[in-house]
Amino acid sequence: MNDILARVSNLCRDAKAASAAIARADTATKNAALDAMARGLRRGADVVLAANAQDLESARANGTSGAMLDRLALDPQRVEAMAKGLDEVRGLPDPVGAMDELRRLPNGLQVGRMRIPLGVVAMIYEARPNVTADAAGLTLKSGNVAILRGGSEAFYSNTAIAGILRSALRDVGLPEAVVSLIDTTDRAAVDALLVQDAFVDLVIPRGGAGLVRSVMQKSRIPVLAHAEGVCHVYVDDSADLEMAVAVSVNAKVQRPAVCNAMETLLVHQSVAPAFLPIAASRLRASGVELRGCERTRKLVPDMVLATEDDWRAEYLDLILAVRVVDSLDQAMDHIRQYGSRHTEAIVTSNHARAMRFIREVDSSLVLVNASTRFNDGNQLGLGAEIGISTTRIHAFGPMGLEELTTRKFVAFGDGQVRG
Amino acid sequence: MNDILARVSNLCRDAKAASAAIARADTATKNAALDAMARGLRRGADVVLAANAQDLESARANGTSGAMLDRLALDPQRVEAMAKGLDEVRGLPDPVGAMDELRRLPNGLQVGRMRIPLGVVAMIYEARPNVTADAAGLTLKSGNVAILRGGSEAFYSNTAIAGILRSALRDVGLPEAVVSLIDTTDRAAVDALLVQDAFVDLVIPRGGAGLVRSVMQKSRIPVLAHAEGVCHVYVDDSADLEMAVAVSVNAKVQRPAVCNAMETLLVHQSVAPAFLPIAASRLRASGVELRGCERTRKLVPDMVLATEDDWRAEYLDLILAVRVVDSLDQAMDHIRQYGSRHTEAIVTSNHARAMRFIREVDSSLVLVNASTRFNDGNQLGLGAEIGISTTRIHAFGPMGLEELTTRKFVAFGDGQVRG
Repeated sequence: MNDILARVSNLCRDAKAASAAIARADTATKNAALDAMARGLRRGADVVLAANAQDLESARANGTSGAMLDRLALDPQRVEAMAKGLDEVRGLPDPVGAMDELRRLPNGLQVGRMRIPLGVVAMIYEARPNVTADAAGLTLKSGNVAILRGGSEAFYSNTAIAGILRSALRDVGLPEAVVSLIDTTDRAAVDALLVQDAFVDLVIPRGGAGLVRSVMQKSRIPVLAHAEGVCHVYVDDSADLEMAVAVSVNAKVQRPAVCNAMETLLVHQSVAPAFLPIAASRLRASGVELRGCERTRKLVPDMVLATEDDWRAEYLDLILAVRVVDSLDQAMDHIRQYGSRHTEAIVTSNHARAMRFIREVDSSLVLVNASTRFNDGNQLGLGAEIGISTTRIHAFGPMGLEELTTRKFVAFGDGQVRG
Repeated sequence: MNDILARVSNLCRDAKAASAAIARADTATKNAALDAMARGLRRGADVVLAANAQDLESARANGTSGAMLDRLALDPQRVEAMAKGLDEVRGLPDPVGAMDELRRLPNGLQVGRMRIPLGVVAMIYEARPNVTADAAGLTLKSGNVAILRGGSEAFYSNTAIAGILRSALRDVGLPEAVVSLIDTTDRAAVDALLVQDAFVDLVIPRGGAGLVRSVMQKSRIPVLAHAEGVCHVYVDDSADLEMAVAVSVNAKVQRPAVCNAMETLLVHQSVAPAFLPIAASRLRASGVELRGCERTRKLVPDMVLATEDDWRAEYLDLILAVRVVDSLDQAMDHIRQYGSRHTEAIVTSNHARAMRFIREVDSSLVLVNASTRFNDGNQLGLGAEIGISTTRIHAFGPMGLEELTTRKFVAFGDGQVRG
């Protein structure tokens, strides 16, 4: 353990030392690095795929499941997608150095705020090796140093990818330490990383609920959690019922395994008799298992009774909890009590209720008449995202390049002193 | 301890329960509460002063020092200043509900961000009882619930002030739990508070370095630290030397006991012979003790040799470390190595060097040709401040009302689903 702690601590110290260089780097240099990284991945695809084959072999030997193997597996198309992701980040505007809120104070001092990198950002993630390239690209473009800790099952793939990225950094004259991968699968390395508050400015855990909770409990470094999504759609009594069916089906079945998929459907009592039978048959036709409250079960036959556990469940699967509510207020109370503040939508044609829902529901994305599946950096127009923060501090919702920065105050004077 | 934990936990649960009401409250209601609070303090000044007399008596009996007694003591003017502070917060614009970055995506979805309260903000502070009113006013206006934990030496004063504030909340129909004071001086209450991550969204420690460090180490809740300021003024070779003297003297002596006072003066070697003797005599005339590097000591006699400890010192006193440097780069290296990223100023007439200093120095406020003493919410035009964050996440520098909020995404659609 002491050996691991010393190694991780040295890596973090080197990362911190490299942060001034990348914070200062101009956009052209950072873009050249991103270009060299993308070209390196394309040129080195064989090396990456060979390393990935090694990971897959170990995973199979360990009896890893099919879904996990699929997330782990790379092929030429997936390597090309990684390179293309870096090209896209190269095309995004550089947030660093932008100044705003510049105003002249009565004493003549010109005061404003300048956007600056956070410093050193550590990313702890699982399975998918593409996160190594995605996270490195976004942290680099935003002027930050990345410390990457991938899952042990992708160790060889991540090592090969990181090697290519570091060699690209060298090629454009930037320090290799701008992207560092923790070079051991020992779990003690994560604990060692989470106490490096002297060198690391932010930790982003991205993975299962267990990983996120454990990082939040142990970290002495600020954490932006990408936690679970218990997302709701509320169908108001004034809803266009066809729209409500389309939004509900999309929110549940378009990609059920992700955090912005709907987990509970809330329906106003006065439209429930007209809406629920149609919605239920459409959802069931897409393979969704329904679990309902007593009132739902009276309207739709053959349904398991939903329990407290169902209201709290993040199924990440083709299962949906359904509840009939008396009013908008009861719907919002339900969301407050059982939701995870991730994403909620109302379907309504009533303007006042739409605005109440928008204002009073306390989630990272609140929608009117649209699917919860839009809670995504690309969909919301941020460009690529490094995660979706369910922490309220610093960033709430999808985090793009700007969310990887902070702002300092700047002041231009001509000799002002305080009286 | 279990009893304390249960009490603190209940208080935090009640605070969380009150957060929806204050988040929803309109500006008029919040302003009515602030007005009732100010009037309550004016009307109840005698009660506050009697409680304060009790605190002062215990403090004197415990042999408390003069400076501490002064910070603890209230008089009619100080009570009036608290009331006036609440009046001023009432006059500031309400940040909650503002929407920005509204854009229409290609699919017709109108997406934007809405400013919302953080939720429950805990404040841990020392000595000055006015912080109770100041913090309550700012958290209320920004739609947050405040949990206050003042120093044990001000327990009776804080209890009297909080009682008046809570009675004002009742008078305007808001829950009393919008402002809660932890009702014990037991130190275990702080530890109990710092694990309430289920109910509390942010902790702001404000006090000595020991308090801040201890909170950062123990907290499971995000912390915005108000940590030490090892602030620098760098006098460039092109500086207007009269301006440099004025800025240096102001930065050191105008109020030496605060975090934005200069602690180290860095001087370019080519102006050191002309600048240092004048600056030293002006500083000494104001009672400042100088500690210099070897080169400084050759130019100014009778000076102790500065050690590594001096470069790192936050004196908070009439003591100043002085170092002659070869260049702007050496000055910035010194700041990087020894500074605390709080406040740094350059005095220069050279535009390129001014802009390099502004861009490359990584502190919460970077100034050209002005005193470090301007790092203050009021001075920078934010209105009242709840502290100066030296944490880079969420807020960096003075925190006003806006820094007590976050932004959620909002989306207005007409049936959009994801394809």
